Amino acid sequence: METVNTTERLEHLRELMKKNEVDIYTDARKLSDKIQKKGGRALVGVHENLVDIVWGKDRPPRPNEPVKVLSVEFAGKKFEEKLEDLRKELEKKKSPGFIVCMLDEIAWLYNLRGNDIPYNPVFFSYAIVTPTKATLYIDSSKLNEEVRSHLGDAVAVRPYDAIQEDIKVLKELSVELVTGEDSSAQKTKDKFLISNKTSWALSEALGGEEKVEEIRSLIADAKAVKNEVELEGMRACHIRDGAALIEYFAWLEEELTIKGTKLDEIEAADKLEEIRSKHKHFVGLSFDTISSAGPNAAVIHYKPERGNCSVIDPKSIYLCDSGAQYLDGTTDTTRTLHFTEPTEMERKAYTLVLKGNIALGRAVFPKGTSGFALDTLARQFLWEEGLDYRHGTGHGVGSYLNVHEGPIGIGTRIQYSEVALAAGNVLSNEPGYYEDGSFGIRIENIMMAKEASTNHKFGEKPYLGFEHVTMVPMCQKLIDAKLLSPIEKDWLNKYHAEIFEKTKGFFENDPRTLGWLKRETDSIG
Amino acid sequence: METVNTTERLEHLRELMKKNEVDIYTDARKLSDKIQKKGGRALVGVHENLVDIVWGKDRPPRPNEPVKVLSVEFAGKKFEEKLEDLRKELEKKKSPGFIVCMLDEIAWLYNLRGNDIPYNPVFFSYAIVTPTKATLYIDSSKLNEEVRSHLGDAVAVRPYDAIQEDIKVLKELSVELVTGEDSSAQKTKDKFLISNKTSWALSEALGGEEKVEEIRSLIADAKAVKNEVELEGMRACHIRDGAALIEYFAWLEEELTIKGTKLDEIEAADKLEEIRSKHKHFVGLSFDTISSAGPNAAVIHYKPERGNCSVIDPKSIYLCDSGAQYLDGTTDTTRTLHFTEPTEMERKAYTLVLKGNIALGRAVFPKGTSGFALDTLARQFLWEEGLDYRHGTGHGVGSYLNVHEGPIGIGTRIQYSEVALAAGNVLSNEPGYYEDGSFGIRIENIMMAKEASTNHKFGEKPYLGFEHVTMVPMCQKLIDAKLLSPIEKDWLNKYHAEIFEKTKGFFENDPRTLGWLKRETDSIG
Repeated sequence: METVNTTERLEHLRELMKKNEVDIYTDARKLSDKIQKKGGRALVGVHENLVDIVWGKDRPPRPNEPVKVLSVEFAGKKFEEKLEDLRKELEKKKSPGFIVCMLDEIAWLYNLRGNDIPYNPVFFSYAIVTPTKATLYIDSSKLNEEVRSHLGDAVAVRPYDAIQEDIKVLKELSVELVTGEDSSAQKTKDKFLISNKTSWALSEALGGEEKVEEIRSLIADAKAVKNEVELEGMRACHIRDGAALIEYFAWLEEELTIKGTKLDEIEAADKLEEIRSKHKHFVGLSFDTISSAGPNAAVIHYKPERGNCSVIDPKSIYLCDSGAQYLDGTTDTTRTLHFTEPTEMERKAYTLVLKGNIALGRAVFPKGTSGFALDTLARQFLWEEGLDYRHGTGHGVGSYLNVHEGPIGIGTRIQYSEVALAAGNVLSNEPGYYEDGSFGIRIENIMMAKEASTNHKFGEKPYLGFEHVTMVPMCQKLIDAKLLSPIEKDWLNKYHAEIFEKTKGFFENDPRTLGWLKRETDSIG
Repeated sequence: METVNTTERLEHLRELMKKNEVDIYTDARKLSDKIQKKGGRALVGVHENLVDIVWGKDRPPRPNEPVKVLSVEFAGKKFEEKLEDLRKELEKKKSPGFIVCMLDEIAWLYNLRGNDIPYNPVFFSYAIVTPTKATLYIDSSKLNEEVRSHLGDAVAVRPYDAIQEDIKVLKELSVELVTGEDSSAQKTKDKFLISNKTSWALSEALGGEEKVEEIRSLIADAKAVKNEVELEGMRACHIRDGAALIEYFAWLEEELTIKGTKLDEIEAADKLEEIRSKHKHFVGLSFDTISSAGPNAAVIHYKPERGNCSVIDPKSIYLCDSGAQYLDGTTDTTRTLHFTEPTEMERKAYTLVLKGNIALGRAVFPKGTSGFALDTLARQFLWEEGLDYRHGTGHGVGSYLNVHEGPIGIGTRIQYSEVALAAGNVLSNEPGYYEDGSFGIRIENIMMAKEASTNHKFGEKPYLGFEHVTMVPMCQKLIDAKLLSPIEKDWLNKYHAEIFEKTKGFFENDPRTLGWLKRETDSIG
């Protein structure tokens, strides 16, 4: 999926706005600084919620879906251990506590999942972790006995709205919470930690800059480095998800080119969801499927509308960007296909995008390298022809969590230069090319960063590389083999052979799909 | 030359320290912020100059070399036009003036050159440019009649030390200097502009943050985009400089391998300087020649010491990083050679470095791309083997000015992400590899950024590429052709053919050099 999914953030912001938490801390501070530089006074928070006024009595109730426990079989680590790690970080920073606002961070920390926001298995809540106490702020009606027993004595449960009151108390208590320090040291070290994505209002309630240290979230950093169980889950769910996509593409090709069925973009996407949902551990989709035909594929944010979308024309490009939530992981794959005769430009553009995808996927780089530094590898072949794409190249992916997560990413945004990639990161690799009104191409694989085995080890530091976990073939019809180097062909042939081996078992009784898979994973000479 | 040459900065800082200008503005402010964050009060300037105390009466006098006019035949633009451009920028920013501290910026602005600092053709001075007045602060004994007549009425000359007094006056005058603005607008717009490399003391003398806006120097930005005459000068001086290096390497090979002469690193470098100095427009070297044999080549900052340096062993690597000042440009070239039988590892490392040099040199990229984003292209092949180098990949180069100049550069330093490369930029491209105690490799070419001719033009923005101007062959003995792709071989063969064509005329009566040149520029199959 090619852009930052703002659904969760929007939903969360809407919640925050109800409490006059109009903007996240960093943005608010930057804006305020800007206003002051231009000769203004400062940013002023409004006390009425403008969105609520617009809603009036039509405002729907807050979602209140039940919360579920994610067993350690999938999470890979007990939440008590995660709390322990977090408390070690607090101790290092001599902080009295960390206030957690991001919903995916709370879900990850406590090994819980919810259903309050479409596609993102999170639940409305806050959390506070101090050296001695962990609290979850949540409407208690969301919690069943299993969740209560899972949290046990380790986590206190308080009402969702109690956070406002509790942080006021915590603010006063903060000095007492840090023990064994003399008072001058306390002066600078008794600050609460909040993520730079925390709301401004919450930060102000905690006492503002005097009392609060804004940092990149400790939980976001920990969550981005997947454990072995999560990595194994990613591999496993991508094989099942790949099998679903392979079955879908084989079906779609037959419907369009042999049966001549008229299918619109949504009808096709529905079939894909039906196939996916048969697979083990399936929970739901991870975002709205981008099923786009011909010129619609050039619209990067395209979302087909039910009953009012294009019929898929087998004579033009079909771009499908989709993903699912499984108990063992989250998937996100884009494949661009052609069912008849692509134009020369479509093949050239597809092959240049593919070369970029392979170059980034094959990259080896020393520890300390950021996604900003790697972005050029994915664009270089397009650039050489005077082509480019106007979106990032990669985003972090959650483990049965949000399909987009920070703090890592690959792209030209300067933030991506601030975080080095690490073994255990799970990222998308999705270069593209879009010709307005004509066609669009995107090739997206999910990759896991891991230590690379290199012939040398200069500077005694680890070198990292990627493991592709997406198991769906590239479109043979769209590949112009003349444009591929021997190294790229070799990479592609090995990748296709791996896909065949790992997915063929699903199609023992499905000759249509097996035939398609064999053809599409055939070696390129 | 592989690292930022600190000679000028050190010399300048020494000058500044005499006036208690202990650090440049940006560094001082950052340090002060840091001190305050840690609970301290602030950075305090010391009023005594500690370095002067150490010098005592041994302190040498300030250099006082004569200043010369650089004719528009070489500068390509009259200084009056440069002043006009600068004043347009001042008007845009509604600023009462720009205070110039960087010596190369003053030399460039007024089309003057000096000799106060070894290798850098600059002179101790300050400059202030306001919408109506341009002033040069310099010891008048440096100026002859030609310089005075060149500056004419356009530039007032004041004593070097008068800057301190004048900025105090200017500070008071600043509001008057901005005309046609109402007073509330003036409040935010009557700030002097200073470069972020200006000394702290000077910024404080101007009234500090209230009165001064710290920016990336307008002159540094303008200077980095060379005009057509400067670009043509760069091409021309690099052909002459290339011819000198070619003659030197041919001579050195014969001395070492046929005559068996014992030559130490300095004796060889002296010969190179002698050859260079015969060439048209030669002024002097642009930095201390790094003439390094065997394990010394692994020392990135190596400087051979006269009478106490290694004898060049023809059985080991020889790395030569050198450059010169010519009236029409500044050169900086590194070549690594082997005169007998390189080891397998030496050939592999050399070829990987060469591949990086070619990849960066061949890069095409859209306007807006920074040198930070391109750096990975130069390192990718080394990284794949677990190899790397611990220095930047490229620096800006002056036009008969400092061999290192900002604000552009190619490397992993985050500053390089802040400035996009532009057509007219002149940069080095110098990946390397260093094996402690054994050998070192660096291949450095100077390149000029220019608009690239691409098959497409996505986004209607210009795409840029590089033109190599260094005209010295790569070392055939060190190239492992098996590791080169057909595209790389083709690039190299064309580059070598160009070198042969452009330099052969120098060697009509020099069969030794012509033979060497023919062999070294021979096509690789």
